[in-house]
Amino acid sequence: MSKHAFQDQGSVEHCHGCGADNEKGLRIKSYWDGDEAIATWQAQPHHCGGRKDIVNGGVIATLIDCHSLNLAIAHAYRSEQRPIGSAPRIGYVTGNLNVSYLKPTPVNEPLHLRARVTKIDGRKVWINCTVSAGGEICATGEVLGVRVRRD
Amino acid sequence: MSKHAFQDQGSVEHCHGCGADNEKGLRIKSYWDGDEAIATWQAQPHHCGGRKDIVNGGVIATLIDCHSLNLAIAHAYRSEQRPIGSAPRIGYVTGNLNVSYLKPTPVNEPLHLRARVTKIDGRKVWINCTVSAGGEICATGEVLGVRVRRD
Repeated sequence: MSKHAFQDQGSVEHCHGCGADNEKGLRIKSYWDGDEAIATWQAQPHHCGGRKDIVNGGVIATLIDCHSLNLAIAHAYRSEQRPIGSAPRIGYVTGNLNVSYLKPTPVNEPLHLRARVTKIDGRKVWINCTVSAGGEICATGEVLGVRVRRD
Repeated sequence: MSKHAFQDQGSVEHCHGCGADNEKGLRIKSYWDGDEAIATWQAQPHHCGGRKDIVNGGVIATLIDCHSLNLAIAHAYRSEQRPIGSAPRIGYVTGNLNVSYLKPTPVNEPLHLRARVTKIDGRKVWINCTVSAGGEICATGEVLGVRVRRD
């Protein structure tokens, strides 16, 4: 498997959360770790919530959403034994996103995401994702992705 | 009731989603409409998802999260018959955020949010929120907010 991030192979373009070409986005970078996907991301000060030292809940939701859908896309390409980004393009959209916030997520530490596919049923895929800092899980998410046609 | 947005009265500061003082944030502005809270927000091109014409799911989650918690805060101040932002400050954090994406949410149209309190139990409040464009609901969210001490 390539050591390049899914996004740098063209898994998703434009996107605010994960597009490598979105200069004002979060630019998440997701990689294989066995059958799971991992990512490390560092918040900037303006990504805070109501306290300057804690990451905004919506930003955490964005990390979970984008990292999980990137896993869905990479998983589908792997299942078809094709390189990420190859034609015909594989796309997923979010059907449902459920995030539980377990403890404050720090702005000043790297955040570690880990996602795994839990179920596949036709065009639908379910993914669980955790967000950790300093070895502790700060938030968990469940994402329902739905495969769509891409041009 | 004031015609100023909750955020411009100091409901929340700093926050990436709704802090009036966060120059790089989404700067959502929430207002009373009877017992519900409404907001109108216009995406910028970099808020797109994997298609340039559709808003990123994480940005939609951020809108729902922040608008709903602002309603929770405003509702609590109103219940105590105090102005928003008055001491002692009232704060809420998100315990759970559940967003269902019903249809693509356009980048080029104003988005309309509407939130209402559905249940209160001690420090916990449950809020439902919709995101609409062109008269159609694009996403719905359920937010569990938990009241916290603020300095």
